[in-house]
Order: sequence, then C-alpha cells, then structure tokens
Amino acid sequence: MSERAGRLVAGLPDIGADLMVVTSLVNVRYLTGYTGSNGLAVIGPDTRVFITDFRYAEQSATEVDGGFDRRIATLDLMEAIDEILPAGSQRMAFEDAHLTVRSHQRLRELMPERVELVAAGDPVEALRTVKSADEIARIRAATELADAALGEIMEQGLTGRTEIEVATALEHAMGERGAKAASFDSIVAAGPHGALPHAQPRNEAIGPGELVVIDWGAELDGYCSDCTRTVATGELGDEARAAYELVREAQLVGLDAVRAGVGGRDADSAARAVIDAAGHGDHFGHGLGHGVGLEIHEAPRLSQRSDDVLRTGSVVTVEPGVYLPGRLGVRIEDLVVVTEAGCDILTSLPKDLVTVG
Amino acid sequence: MSERAGRLVAGLPDIGADLMVVTSLVNVRYLTGYTGSNGLAVIGPDTRVFITDFRYAEQSATEVDGGFDRRIATLDLMEAIDEILPAGSQRMAFEDAHLTVRSHQRLRELMPERVELVAAGDPVEALRTVKSADEIARIRAATELADAALGEIMEQGLTGRTEIEVATALEHAMGERGAKAASFDSIVAAGPHGALPHAQPRNEAIGPGELVVIDWGAELDGYCSDCTRTVATGELGDEARAAYELVREAQLVGLDAVRAGVGGRDADSAARAVIDAAGHGDHFGHGLGHGVGLEIHEAPRLSQRSDDVLRTGSVVTVEPGVYLPGRLGVRIEDLVVVTEAGCDILTSLPKDLVTVG
Repeated sequence: MSERAGRLVAGLPDIGADLMVVTSLVNVRYLTGYTGSNGLAVIGPDTRVFITDFRYAEQSATEVDGGFDRRIATLDLMEAIDEILPAGSQRMAFEDAHLTVRSHQRLRELMPERVELVAAGDPVEALRTVKSADEIARIRAATELADAALGEIMEQGLTGRTEIEVATALEHAMGERGAKAASFDSIVAAGPHGALPHAQPRNEAIGPGELVVIDWGAELDGYCSDCTRTVATGELGDEARAAYELVREAQLVGLDAVRAGVGGRDADSAARAVIDAAGHGDHFGHGLGHGVGLEIHEAPRLSQRSDDVLRTGSVVTVEPGVYLPGRLGVRIEDLVVVTEAGCDILTSLPKDLVTVG
Repeated sequence: MSERAGRLVAGLPDIGADLMVVTSLVNVRYLTGYTGSNGLAVIGPDTRVFITDFRYAEQSATEVDGGFDRRIATLDLMEAIDEILPAGSQRMAFEDAHLTVRSHQRLRELMPERVELVAAGDPVEALRTVKSADEIARIRAATELADAALGEIMEQGLTGRTEIEVATALEHAMGERGAKAASFDSIVAAGPHGALPHAQPRNEAIGPGELVVIDWGAELDGYCSDCTRTVATGELGDEARAAYELVREAQLVGLDAVRAGVGGRDADSAARAVIDAAGHGDHFGHGLGHGVGLEIHEAPRLSQRSDDVLRTGSVVTVEPGVYLPGRLGVRIEDLVVVTEAGCDILTSLPKDLVTVG
C-alpha cells in the first residue's frame, strides 16, 4: 500500500507541488487503508502523515499502513497540519475536486504564509484507475457474489412480484452471501418504467411479456461491482425484441473496442455508432461506461465528454442502452478489466435474451 | 414544500444575496422533493427553478414540487443557470460548506460578470433544524421500526454470536420491517471493544458478563433514526456497573437540559458535568448529540464547539458515553424532539440496565 503514496509523490512535480494534503476519504482509504469517517493524509517525498481524531485512535492503529506517522488530533484535523510541515516554503497540493470552498478557506487560514496552496484536481483518483491484482480479485469476488444473487432471484420468477419486492430480495440475497451492502440502490424496472435509465423500483407488479431492466451490484471488502441485465417475462413484441438485439450488438461492439490505449470517447463512439445507425441515437442518452472500484462511479469515463484513456488494469463498465419513453428500456452491462489485447469480462451472466416466468 | 423555498428567500437579505443556487443534493431534496443524483435549484423572490439532466426527466416530473419551473439540461447542470437569471446585477448565494473549489470556479466561469457570488455557508441546513409535523412523524416511524428490530435481536440472545452476526441480523430485521437501509453502519461492540466510540463489528463472539454497545438506526421515507443502548450479557463487575449508572445519570441530566432556547454547548455542559464530577471527564471524548433528519448528522450540534441554539421542532440525539480504553465502553442515546417545555423522547426502549443471555 505504501507504494501508492510513492506513486503520488512521483507525480507531484507535474502538479507543481512539493507535497499534498489528501482530504477525500476514499482517497485517504486508498493511500493509507483507513476506513473511518474523519481522517486526512499529508504526503511528500519525506512526509507520510495520517491524522484522525480521538474516536478513531484504535481503529486507525489497526488499519493505517505502517509507513505512515499516525497522529491523533482534534475533530478539526486541519489544525494539526501546520506542525508536521517540512521547513521552508512549501507548495501544497489539495484536491480542488473534493475540498469545499469553506474548507479551502479554513486551510488557507491555518497554513503559514510560507505555504502556497495548489489546486491539483484529483490525482489520487487518477492513480486508482490502474487496479492492482488484489483490487481486481476483490472486484471479481464482488461480481461473482452479485451474479449468484441474481441467479437465485431469477429462479423465483418475476411475473406478479413488485419491483420493490424483487429489488429487496436481490439485496437480501447479496447480504446473505456476505456483501457489506448493495453498491448502489438496485434498479428493477419493468415495461415502460424501464425507459428511465435511473428508475426507482415501484410498488407495482411486474407483468407478463415485459422487458425488465435489472441493474445492481455488491460491495465486498470495500470494492464495488456493477452489472445490468434486461430479461423478458414471456413472449415479446417485435419492437422489444429488436431493441434487445440492437443493444446486445452495441454492447458486443463496445466490448470489442475496449483495449489499453483507447480513449473513453472512442470506445463510446464505437458502441454508439451501432445504435445511431439503427436510428436510435436519441434514445441512448448516457455514456457507454465508467470506472468501478472503491467507488461505484470513478475514472476513467467512457463517454463523448471524456478525455480519459483506458489503461491496462482499469476496471470499467460497458453498458449501452436504448430507452423508448412510455414504451420500454433495454440496458446490458458487463464489468471488465482492460488489458493490452482487449478486456477480461468479470461478469459471467449470459447476454442472449433470457425469459423467466 | 414550497413554503420551504419561501423561508429561504426570506433569509436572503441577511446573507446579502438576491437569489441562491442550491447544489447540495440533500438540500435540493428538502426544497423541491427531488431524490435523484444530479440536480440543483435556483431560488429567489421571483425565481423557483429546478434543473436536472435527461436521465431524471421522468423521475423529476413526479417528484419535484409544482411551484418549481423544471428544466432538463446537459449533465453539467451549471451551464443552464445563466439563461434563467433575472435581468440586472445579481448577488447569488452559494453553499460554500458544500460546493467544491473546482465547482465554484466552474460556476464563476459560467456566470456573466453581472453576477456576484456570495458564500452563504449552509442556510438550508439551518432551515432543516426546525422539523415539520410530517418530518417528525417520519422520524418517529423510523425510530419505532428500529426499536422493534432491536427487540427481535435481543430475544435471540447475544452471548456466543459474533458482533458481525448481530449487526447483520439487526440490519436484516430493519429491512424486513420496511427500512430502506440502515441509516449508518451499525455498531455492535462488546467488552473492551466498546471503548471505541465508532467501533466496527468484529468477527468475534460476544462473551458472557460483558457490556455490549449497540448503536443503530433506520432510514425510512428519507428520514433517519439514531439510538444507542448498552446491554449486559450476564453479571457485571463493579467498574462496569458504575460506568453504566454514571452514563445513565448523565443521559437523564442531558435530557433535562434540552429545551427550546438552550444552547447546544450548555446542554452538553450539563451532561458533561456529571461525568466530570465522577472523574471521567477524559473518557467522554465526543459531543452530547447532534441533529437528525434527512441526514444522520445535521444541525444543531450539542457540544463544546457548538454555537447552535435548540429550537422547538429540532430533532436531536442525547448520547453521553464513558470509554475506558482496553476495558469497556458505555453509551446511552435517545432521539428527542425539542419543545418549549423540554423534549419529547421518540425512543421507547428502557434505560435501566438490561441483561440478555
């Protein structure tokens, strides 16, 4: 884990900084191992300091990487930064993508004049885009757990159960398999409700002959999984069948485009071209995918707005969709590990249209 | 709900602002009803605008209060603010307690020169400190649900089960009663582990004759509950019994101090004096309590660092504790509604020491 702080330090000159204060808790966790709710890290060539408050004295002793000097401070942790700064003028990077305007002002007030604050975006999230073998193993385990939970739910059938019942049963099934939690609020959206990409499960029974979009994930050992399948509850009409086949084809093309060195925008474009060509460009209103790790949404992004480049060891979703308002929705999503040659698909569920009762 | 925006507008002159952009999602929810993951509101004397993106077009149509003009924009919602601004120079308040440095810079770039940005802290959280009857009813329902779930767990006994098993069973029991989720990660901490105020449940069996700190809550209809009980698994030693009785007395004194018009610092001082007098001042390292509502921790704060004043309709915890490192911990916490005369206790569980097998 201390290798991670080393990678951050190696990038400080590019940011124009001598050291960095890390305040985003997910980034503090990544760098130090700490999982509590109040902590920060100050990291530089000769500085590895972790600061928390009294409540986390024992927890942090267990969790925080031994390479860090661990300090216990007041609740206002920034008050403790001053005393650990190296001598002389310091350019201190901070996460302007996370630090609030108020906390930035507080930091400025607390730092001596010799400290210059440098907005650095989120360089730790950038480090997080390349997963270690251990991280990939955890994400794989979360994915297998979530896949198995869906299998159990499918065996129970969908027709006649409410969306909320199915979502709750799915989350229970993940919990019984050891998931700490669902990695996000599960989506179970039948028929026209599936046209909402972020639909909330309703207290309404799923009917026969509908498409049901199910988007769910597990959190296990700190890492998230993410998957979507769209299943049929009986014989479908032509429009639904065609939409399913179109998304399936776009998803395969998207997978085929994913490879180390490819831009997130280009991967998105490849899948989007399939949907555009079928005249449904306006019905695919979100990006192709996103990184997954300690957070359910993280870098790199696969979309038309992305400047990210996929790298070996990135873990990303590939999830095109077609949404026909008032009629139906289809989304198919795999979680994959980017490799030199392409990608390894973590999700093990079939993508041929599955019909359940 | 539109009355809430009216209260915000009434406070704008005190902030020195003509209108306000609200970006914190919990505050957007409070003002508009929207529960999605991307939305903002712009509110002024003649302005009630809610902005979200394509993904939430249908959901926001259902959820957002009719008093708001609802706009669908690109993912970068701030791009849509310019076109809805009233004419002339505008002082626009923003939540510097929530807006990141980067988003603030983006907002500054997008706004025309005639707009002055005014750091306003978190005025919506201040509004949220006085709950409506409907909000109190929801918090009461969440509390009753959580109380009932604990009752079920106590009937199953504690000795020999691991802390993780008990925490998981408690969360399942809340889920089966309709809770959307636990309102925070449940704490189940036996014996010396109870000395960690924010202990994480361990994979270790609870022994006989120990104190077990259980801190848990339910989220229901968007609102949280929060409660702690410390129970015994058999005959206790003198030190544990004395610590329990001390915290119990401090908790009753704390409850007695809670009343509209009282400072959060003064309520804390009242309970703290009891613990100080017993020579355990150094073993009560957190504040007496905090507000609870849409968030599990919100204003007002009851602590030595607080300048908040309790108001009729505030919902707060009263939760003194004594933590003896390496030996034991005790915390007793009720959730209460502040009234003119004192407080109504929402928690229905007993505070005499309960012994379970």
